[in-house]
Amino acid sequence: MRFTSERRLDDGVLEREFTLGEIPGTLWAPDSAAPLPLILTAHNNGLPRREPRLVARARQSAACGYAVASIDAAGCGDRPRSAADERARAELRRAMRAGEPVDEIFESFIGPLVEKAAPEWRTALDALLALPEIGGPVGYSGWTAVGIRLAVTEPRIAAATLFAGGYVPRAQREEARRVTAPLLLLLQWDDEGNPRERALDLFDAFGTREKTLHANLGGHTGTPWFEAEDGNRFFDRHLK
Amino acid sequence: MRFTSERRLDDGVLEREFTLGEIPGTLWAPDSAAPLPLILTAHNNGLPRREPRLVARARQSAACGYAVASIDAAGCGDRPRSAADERARAELRRAMRAGEPVDEIFESFIGPLVEKAAPEWRTALDALLALPEIGGPVGYSGWTAVGIRLAVTEPRIAAATLFAGGYVPRAQREEARRVTAPLLLLLQWDDEGNPRERALDLFDAFGTREKTLHANLGGHTGTPWFEAEDGNRFFDRHLK
Repeated sequence: MRFTSERRLDDGVLEREFTLGEIPGTLWAPDSAAPLPLILTAHNNGLPRREPRLVARARQSAACGYAVASIDAAGCGDRPRSAADERARAELRRAMRAGEPVDEIFESFIGPLVEKAAPEWRTALDALLALPEIGGPVGYSGWTAVGIRLAVTEPRIAAATLFAGGYVPRAQREEARRVTAPLLLLLQWDDEGNPRERALDLFDAFGTREKTLHANLGGHTGTPWFEAEDGNRFFDRHLK
Repeated sequence: MRFTSERRLDDGVLEREFTLGEIPGTLWAPDSAAPLPLILTAHNNGLPRREPRLVARARQSAACGYAVASIDAAGCGDRPRSAADERARAELRRAMRAGEPVDEIFESFIGPLVEKAAPEWRTALDALLALPEIGGPVGYSGWTAVGIRLAVTEPRIAAATLFAGGYVPRAQREEARRVTAPLLLLLQWDDEGNPRERALDLFDAFGTREKTLHANLGGHTGTPWFEAEDGNRFFDRHLK
C-alpha cells in the first residue's frame, strides 16, 4: 500500500489517497492516540469512490472516530475502463430510465463486477489492518451486493449498513440467508431505481438475528441527513 | 387536574399520579428551570398506563428532558370496566391467539374505544399545557389509532412515534392520508399480532412528507432497547 497524497480537511480529518497494486483508494481518518475501528465504504454498483455523497458520508464517519476507506472497483472511478463496460453501463442507465426490466443487464454486468470487487476489498482490508493507526473491528457500509459477499466470506466484517437493495445479483440474493453479522438496511421508499418489494424481501431474507430496516420517504438520493448519524450510532454499538 | 400522589424515582424524574374528572393519569418529568416539551404516551388498544414497558419508555423519555403523560382510556387500566368490555377483550385475545380473523371484533371493540379516547387526550392536553412546568411543543407516542386521530384533529401535535399498526380501525386507516405531522413508525418484523403487510401499507398511506419506518426482527415485545433512544432523538429533532 502506497500513499500518494494527503490533505487535512476542515473537520480535522486526514484524507489520504493510496494505491494498492492497480487498486486506487482513499482513506479518511481523524488523528487518534489509539488504533481506530475501520469502516469500508463502497458506492452501489461500482460508482466512483470520489462521488460527493459517498465522500460526505465517509468524512462524517471519520469525524466520529473511524478510519474510513474506499476503493474503486475494476473499470470504475479512476481505473481504466473498457468500451464494453461503458456500453453496458450506458445500456443499464438507459433501461432504468425507460423503466424497462433490467435484471438481465444487471446480472451480466453487475454480477461479475461484484465477483471481481470482493477479493479486492479483502486485499484492501489486509493492507489497511496492517497500518498502525487502524486496529479494527471492521464495519462495512454501502454497496449492498459487495456487502453481502464480504459478510459471508470475511469473518472480520463485524457489522454492515447496506443501502437500497432493490437490485442485487442473483448470487447475492441467495447468499443473503447466510449473512449473520448485524445489519442496518437503509431504504428510500420511493426509490425509482430500486423496487421496494425486492428490498423488503431482501431484508426478510438476511439470516442475521440482529437486523434493522430504516425506510424514509423520497427518491434514491433523498436520504435524510439524520440517517448518517443513525448509521454512525449503529457502528458505535457494534465496533466501539 | 388534581395531583393525588408523587414519588421521586432513582433517575431524578418526578412521577405524579393525577385525576382529571374521571380520567386517571400519570405525569413523569425531570426538574427543569425552563418549561418542558411534552410527550403524550398511550399503549396500543387501551392497555393500562401502568404497563411496565410503557412506564419504562415514559421514564426514559422524561430523563431525556421531556414531560411525559399517560392516561387510562375508558374501561381500561384503573377505570371501571363493564362486563361487555371484558368479554370483548377476552374474545379479541382468544381470536388473536387462535390466529382467527379479528377485523370485526377489532372494529366493534377498538373502534369505539379510539373514538372515546381521543377527546379525553385533548382534555388532558389542555390541562397539561396549563401547568407552569410544561411549555410544549407536543409529541405523541404509542397507540397508533389514537395517534392518527389526534394528529388529524389536534394541530398542537408536532410529531408522533407510532408502534405496530398491523390492526388499526377502518376510520383511522382512512384518516392516515390526512396526517401531516412528522412520523416515526416502529414495526416488529415478526409481530404475531400485527400483519406486516398492513403495517407497511399504513406507513405508505400516511400523508406526511417526513415519515420514517424502523423495523426490527422479532415479535411484538421484542423491540430492541436502542429504538427507545432513536425515538427520543426523533423527538429531539422536532420538539426541542
